Amino acid sequence: MAARLIDGKARAAALRAAVAERVAAFPGRKPGLAVVLVGEDPASSVYVRSKNRACAEAGMRGFEHRLPDTVAQADLLALVDRLNADPEVDGILVQLPLPKHIDANKVITRIDPDKDVDGFHPVNAGRLATGLPGFVPCTPFGCLMLIRDVRERLAGLEAVVVGRSNIVGKPMAQLLIAESCTVTVAHSRTRDLGLHLARADVVVAAVGVPKLIRGDQLKAGATVIDVGINRTDVGLVGDVDFDSALPVAGAITPVPGGVGPMTIACLLRNTLVSAGRREGVEIDEGGF
Amino acid sequence: MAARLIDGKARAAALRAAVAERVAAFPGRKPGLAVVLVGEDPASSVYVRSKNRACAEAGMRGFEHRLPDTVAQADLLALVDRLNADPEVDGILVQLPLPKHIDANKVITRIDPDKDVDGFHPVNAGRLATGLPGFVPCTPFGCLMLIRDVRERLAGLEAVVVGRSNIVGKPMAQLLIAESCTVTVAHSRTRDLGLHLARADVVVAAVGVPKLIRGDQLKAGATVIDVGINRTDVGLVGDVDFDSALPVAGAITPVPGGVGPMTIACLLRNTLVSAGRREGVEIDEGGF
Repeated sequence: MAARLIDGKARAAALRAAVAERVAAFPGRKPGLAVVLVGEDPASSVYVRSKNRACAEAGMRGFEHRLPDTVAQADLLALVDRLNADPEVDGILVQLPLPKHIDANKVITRIDPDKDVDGFHPVNAGRLATGLPGFVPCTPFGCLMLIRDVRERLAGLEAVVVGRSNIVGKPMAQLLIAESCTVTVAHSRTRDLGLHLARADVVVAAVGVPKLIRGDQLKAGATVIDVGINRTDVGLVGDVDFDSALPVAGAITPVPGGVGPMTIACLLRNTLVSAGRREGVEIDEGGF
Repeated sequence: MAARLIDGKARAAALRAAVAERVAAFPGRKPGLAVVLVGEDPASSVYVRSKNRACAEAGMRGFEHRLPDTVAQADLLALVDRLNADPEVDGILVQLPLPKHIDANKVITRIDPDKDVDGFHPVNAGRLATGLPGFVPCTPFGCLMLIRDVRERLAGLEAVVVGRSNIVGKPMAQLLIAESCTVTVAHSRTRDLGLHLARADVVVAAVGVPKLIRGDQLKAGATVIDVGINRTDVGLVGDVDFDSALPVAGAITPVPGGVGPMTIACLLRNTLVSAGRREGVEIDEGGF
């Protein structure tokens, strides 16, 4: 029996519609997201454009700031300071990667944690780790939503997160621990990934190795979330070998059309939540 | 063959001696640790007294602040503010637990993260999670030192952390991920702990269940770190059944005399490191 396909595109559309509905009902000014793009990286430009379009479609204000890749770090930090102070800006996103002469950590830690809708600030990583309210990075947050859609109960499930990046693997592990999964974090130094995959009820692959995980390694019925987006000669492929995984998994995300669309939708959700917190407007934060 | 006994008492004494040596060579004022005790809890009083004595023995200054358990939260916060501002205070520790009328989270997040030598502030949890320098909670930090003493290479080892508290389990997992172990976080909702223990090269037990882990569940040669200190009718016992674990493990901490003494030693180490950072005095932070 083939796995259920997890339609991230449809789920993201529903999430964006839910956000738009709440934005329409938002009293007074509309929630606003500032996106900062440094340089002309084509992929980054595409992302920034999508984010701005998504903002507009949700009825939010988008503030786009484009800086040349020669910008001085001090000028970028000064822009972040202005956005921190701007009452109409609820979320600030600095598109990564930044040019080499700029210390990305310095820029990210300069963002007001309460406007850090990307959830990359160490304060938000710490809030996530200690169970305090903050902002969760959009990609793992979107993954969790997809997992919840297909698994009735997460408590006690065996979850394996492949990858230990700050923006996906590690926050994903925190989220799954908070859901009372037993969580294993595997990565490039893991000696026997297959050993872990064989028992995993939930697999989140975020390692950037095309087709690393094969169907014959999976437990029958597993929920497989593929965060990988690898450009290869045969097009975009994930970290999971989709064709061999499909008949084994219980549910699986395609690449593209799985996790990808959730990221921007969660970004809009976080921006709305930020506006609600800042304006004292009640947003049912768990209700998306 | 019986396991090697990990002598935490000796290791802690060596660490404290190393700290004392650096304190003696510290130019100008001596590093200072402020310990705040609210109320008369006997166990807390003992801990606070030990911490003050350890400070003195290391040549540091200890500033003890005792407040009645009726203290208003605002007054406790005002004390934290004063300690934050006091240039002679390098480390601030508020002894937990606090009386019920006080919001412990509020107090901990009020401490200047750069004086938070307990490593409980969310900012330090976030720094640990994202690989930035900060302060690591003393107990898991001490556990890591003990593990390093008995394992030449940690990269690729299978590590199982039993317990997911903010002060031991979760930071322990972060430390072991940073050491490139494959890390599993198990806890009360884990369905089959034995499955995980059977493959574990390193086990850290921090769950507070007397003798939860038996020798027949361990992999031969495993490094077993027992953080549990459970008061039972037969005295203090750990989370590991020491007698059955001893012939199976490769190395194991006793209870008491294992992890316990490392906690205060690491607290002194963190206070010295804080003083070094604050005064611009070079301390070889990795060299303990």
